[in-house]
Amino acid sequence: MDQEMKDTLFATIDTLQEELVETVSQLVQHKSVSPVFAWELETSKGGETAVNKHMQILMNELGAKSEMFAIQDDRQNLCGVYKGSGEGKSLLFNGHVDVVPPGDLSQWKGQSPFSGEVEGDYIHGRGSVDMKGGLTAALFALKGILKAGYRPKGDVVYQFAVGEECKETELGTGACLDKGYLADAAIVCEPTSSAMNPFDICIAQAGVFEMTFRVKGKSCHAGARREVIRDGGAGDAVGVDAIEKGMIVYNALKDLERRWGQTKVHPMFKPGSFNLNAATIKAGVGPSLVAPDMEVAYGIFYCPTDEAKAAQLEIEEVVHNACLNDPWLRANPPEISWTFNWPAFSTAADDPFVLAVQKSVQKVVPEGGNLNSFFAVSDACFIQEKGVPVVLLGPGECLLCHTTEEKVAIAQLTQAAKIYALAIAEWCGIEKQD
Amino acid sequence: MDQEMKDTLFATIDTLQEELVETVSQLVQHKSVSPVFAWELETSKGGETAVNKHMQILMNELGAKSEMFAIQDDRQNLCGVYKGSGEGKSLLFNGHVDVVPPGDLSQWKGQSPFSGEVEGDYIHGRGSVDMKGGLTAALFALKGILKAGYRPKGDVVYQFAVGEECKETELGTGACLDKGYLADAAIVCEPTSSAMNPFDICIAQAGVFEMTFRVKGKSCHAGARREVIRDGGAGDAVGVDAIEKGMIVYNALKDLERRWGQTKVHPMFKPGSFNLNAATIKAGVGPSLVAPDMEVAYGIFYCPTDEAKAAQLEIEEVVHNACLNDPWLRANPPEISWTFNWPAFSTAADDPFVLAVQKSVQKVVPEGGNLNSFFAVSDACFIQEKGVPVVLLGPGECLLCHTTEEKVAIAQLTQAAKIYALAIAEWCGIEKQD
Repeated sequence: MDQEMKDTLFATIDTLQEELVETVSQLVQHKSVSPVFAWELETSKGGETAVNKHMQILMNELGAKSEMFAIQDDRQNLCGVYKGSGEGKSLLFNGHVDVVPPGDLSQWKGQSPFSGEVEGDYIHGRGSVDMKGGLTAALFALKGILKAGYRPKGDVVYQFAVGEECKETELGTGACLDKGYLADAAIVCEPTSSAMNPFDICIAQAGVFEMTFRVKGKSCHAGARREVIRDGGAGDAVGVDAIEKGMIVYNALKDLERRWGQTKVHPMFKPGSFNLNAATIKAGVGPSLVAPDMEVAYGIFYCPTDEAKAAQLEIEEVVHNACLNDPWLRANPPEISWTFNWPAFSTAADDPFVLAVQKSVQKVVPEGGNLNSFFAVSDACFIQEKGVPVVLLGPGECLLCHTTEEKVAIAQLTQAAKIYALAIAEWCGIEKQD
Repeated sequence: MDQEMKDTLFATIDTLQEELVETVSQLVQHKSVSPVFAWELETSKGGETAVNKHMQILMNELGAKSEMFAIQDDRQNLCGVYKGSGEGKSLLFNGHVDVVPPGDLSQWKGQSPFSGEVEGDYIHGRGSVDMKGGLTAALFALKGILKAGYRPKGDVVYQFAVGEECKETELGTGACLDKGYLADAAIVCEPTSSAMNPFDICIAQAGVFEMTFRVKGKSCHAGARREVIRDGGAGDAVGVDAIEKGMIVYNALKDLERRWGQTKVHPMFKPGSFNLNAATIKAGVGPSLVAPDMEVAYGIFYCPTDEAKAAQLEIEEVVHNACLNDPWLRANPPEISWTFNWPAFSTAADDPFVLAVQKSVQKVVPEGGNLNSFFAVSDACFIQEKGVPVVLLGPGECLLCHTTEEKVAIAQLTQAAKIYALAIAEWCGIEKQD
């Protein structure tokens, strides 16, 4: 790409800044809270669709071919393709239109969470960072290219999906992919900046399981505890303390967590990033009884290089082995339930697409474009499952997601639009319009 | 006591068996469930008073001076004194008239829980063992003495108290004691028989605390767990896992429990009878968060030779010390709450009263009268607090208390009446009526 092309693109996108800001502000005002949260259902109903209707108008103005469709109720995805001239690779921009609830309203200082208020250098509100800023910038990247008198050689594809916040991929990104909205590479426009590191390129995310184990004991009056635990006691003929038994399993999984600090490593993650978070414990019924049951629920962050099934089997084996030396647990093995799996993903650091994106970032933000892992989960894994190289890259500070201080810097929005435009230029190629 | 006196007493009490059985059966039919359980309040309302009205008629027939009084609502205690001729020591019989709820009605095989049905050798129903059988036998002991033509030399005192099952001593036994119904010694007529050992004499009971400790952590997203627990992490600047911290305290109390197996001994208890039953655990809010709090509730059985306050201090010191090596816990010490203390009691095995009672038992049941500790709690401790030597002794198998198989053997009821009559004879002395 020559200097003139770049200068023209940047200058054009700069002229779009006001419109870009106005669009993000308007999108924030659509209360597209995922209905799974059951937050003010009457207010938030159809919010996702409202965002996408808004975006479809913009998309159509650009000359993209768009489609809205819902798998469930009025929760419409928007997909679009801007056909390239035919000689370039295609690029998919993915983003979600749903947001999390605003949380404690009294914590929103000055602004109401859905005001979309523009104040100084920021647009405030729920969804400004996560992730209406990112998906708007992706659309304005194409708008900038076209307005500057260029056009992409490869197809530029958009998926503005519902149902990401609560992992309803079958309604959102997964459904868009199944409809055939695919490409040779993809950017998920989630926020990837931090105060120190603007525009990280996230090429991996940990997988997340939710797992619960339940141990059954045998309840008896606490006055008979002597029989249960003491020398000469009748043992399980009288009672079994589920808490003592549960601790055997808890401690074994704690050991596994420690071991993972050394056995589970990935170049994009700091050592020790893969953990078994014993998150909740429920045990027993009351002080006068030896506890009849214990239940521990985990949030488990596993390594992208592990197959989900393999990680599950490793954990189940640890639980199994922990019980081998305990006759009660051997005879009454813990019940394990896997209630949730958000898959991991990992894209090679030297993938040509990653290099192209990195080049694009650094032309806009020279200190940016560091390769990293994503701090949370995202729909990127579902895109990779289709064999598409994918990265996460977008405006906004990750740490503001889901907080009552959510706001996106206007300067970063414009930078993002430029970065995405350059990524289209680098990956799809662009050429002067006829 | 001469053989003739004994034979006359026994023969007389045998003639009272039918009436004794009928009385116990009728008392069981009063649904005197402690209102604290809120079990069918309309049905159980005034049940305690109904039992005592019934007993007062019998008591008055014997010529005792009786009094009914309530501290709360219509929950009337019955106290009575049969004045001795003046030359003997006085003896108090204490029992409670409240019962626990019937539990799962479908488990009551054949009988409804308040039928009081007499079937074969047993009277069935809630309260038959715990403890309407015992208190009726205590009254029939005096009835037998009088009907046989004797009279006690010392006073025979009765306390039929409300509010034992939920430790409302201030409404029941404690209130009776405060009214001045005291004596030189006391028998609490709780069931003390087991299949192998009829009519144990229980001269001690463990104290029972309910204690809860609460540990606060600092919640953060589970994705930041690395920062919380791993090498190089920011630690408590980001988050603190309340479960990991709570386990430090849990394990310290577990160690203390083990230690108590050697440090807390009492001749009436098998080694290891004093325990800290970690009965319930509640921790955390959900899999995606590092747990912000953990709460463990204990039922603690402590040694009668320990002052309650000393036992509390020992436990609090263990918790305190456990935190010393953990900067977070040192700065944020666990909150400990003591929600319940049912005091212990212990009467010397060689107390003259114990020996007198033992002699009485063995004249009726030669293999009975073993000295033991009581398997549960009782109001005996409140009597001992007044300086009165006290034992637990009564008909019925302890293990049937609070079960859906509660039933008392008729033969044991009659034996109990004989034992109590002999105890009056031994302790108060009896003489021929004028």
